[in-house]
Amino acid sequence: VPRTLKLLIAYDGTGYSGWQRQENGIGIQAVIEDEIAAIVGRHTPIVAAGRTDAGVHAAGQVASFTTDHTITCEDLLRALNARLTTDIRIRSIEETFAGFDARHHAKTKTYRYAIWNGAVPSPFIRHVVWHVPQRLDVERMNAAAQFLIGEHDFASFQASGGDVKTSTRELLEFDVRVIDTRTEEASFVPGELIRCEVTGTGFLRHMVRTIVGTLSEIGRDKLPPETMKEILEARSRPRAGRTAPPQGLMLWEVTY
Amino acid sequence: VPRTLKLLIAYDGTGYSGWQRQENGIGIQAVIEDEIAAIVGRHTPIVAAGRTDAGVHAAGQVASFTTDHTITCEDLLRALNARLTTDIRIRSIEETFAGFDARHHAKTKTYRYAIWNGAVPSPFIRHVVWHVPQRLDVERMNAAAQFLIGEHDFASFQASGGDVKTSTRELLEFDVRVIDTRTEEASFVPGELIRCEVTGTGFLRHMVRTIVGTLSEIGRDKLPPETMKEILEARSRPRAGRTAPPQGLMLWEVTY
Repeated sequence: VPRTLKLLIAYDGTGYSGWQRQENGIGIQAVIEDEIAAIVGRHTPIVAAGRTDAGVHAAGQVASFTTDHTITCEDLLRALNARLTTDIRIRSIEETFAGFDARHHAKTKTYRYAIWNGAVPSPFIRHVVWHVPQRLDVERMNAAAQFLIGEHDFASFQASGGDVKTSTRELLEFDVRVIDTRTEEASFVPGELIRCEVTGTGFLRHMVRTIVGTLSEIGRDKLPPETMKEILEARSRPRAGRTAPPQGLMLWEVTY
Repeated sequence: VPRTLKLLIAYDGTGYSGWQRQENGIGIQAVIEDEIAAIVGRHTPIVAAGRTDAGVHAAGQVASFTTDHTITCEDLLRALNARLTTDIRIRSIEETFAGFDARHHAKTKTYRYAIWNGAVPSPFIRHVVWHVPQRLDVERMNAAAQFLIGEHDFASFQASGGDVKTSTRELLEFDVRVIDTRTEEASFVPGELIRCEVTGTGFLRHMVRTIVGTLSEIGRDKLPPETMKEILEARSRPRAGRTAPPQGLMLWEVTY
């Protein structure tokens, strides 16, 4: 009887071309699929909750696949982590109901975006933050983000060339705050770490990064938070800010 | 009038062959010297407090050099950081007295060594920790470390092939403790972060790493802390434990 397995995965996206298997560059999906193939003896496609872009990280990516192989979840976990490079870690593997699909059954996804606001960041966190030297007004950014809560047409925050049917999505929570500098090894450099955490039932391509880029402009130029409402209602990508770079983004959690 | 400048430097040593300029591989010294040469117009040798080995990091390396160039410290700091790769950061530059030598005038050096004790570490800290899966007894390790305080012949903890006149060194403080998992991005993996922090007036080559390797064996095998005293008094490298790998080590602070 084929079993359906659910994997919880963390990865440092630096140096990968994103989640998806692709022609040019190395996709994290391909790296994991190749190791699963080596263990179960055949190519086994896996599906992930979110297709992270090149350079984007994950602490809580979820993926699923179906296999006839009888290996236990514990043994598969051990074998996979032993084979995989240390920048990809399988946090857990469990058996779930037949037909489970990590992508289609996802209820909510939470992303975190980290901005280093100050002098050049410490070398030890440079690969997981976006460096913004200009002083940001975090309260203003957080107030602006609240206009995005609820179901809206997020066309202003959609990457061009998307093939989705509708750009309506629903955001449930958005929190922008300064967090304690994560590590003492980071905190010797003057600056603050700003975390933008957003939970929604679905996201468009580059949506979080474009929202964060727009938030940074509101915070930097001290624009009124209502600017975000206007940009949202314009449904026009050129009205929004720049797309923030990938390395600050992390897929934090997926719920089912 | 030539001025003597003192630099405070942080670097992620991953991918470098250590501090020293060398034939094979890229030394951090060479990278910084080349950028200084491009700014001041001539090759200018710099001297560092501690020659970190390949893969070893620094948060508080100190270096010095002398120059005839009239650039201000602020401008040099800005120009250097703009030119340097982001895994090397100059934290500050200040003018100091003529004849200051970052190496010979150093009074104490503090090193930190980070051990990830538990399951495979998070991808986001893998490059700054040593992974020890076997459960370590931290209290026992700390008790053992206290036998090293004071002036001793550290021949048991010296890398072979050293060319120093004496293997007597003085340690002032040694603290082994579990610290709060540094980052939420690390803490989703089960385990504890153990920090070994040691301050001394001087260190032999590989001394900290060999002490940490020995401490890990005392912690893992639940050997009595007094084992460390016996190993120290044996003055024999084979009596000590393995040399812990470089990526857990960081030159934290130098005092003058």
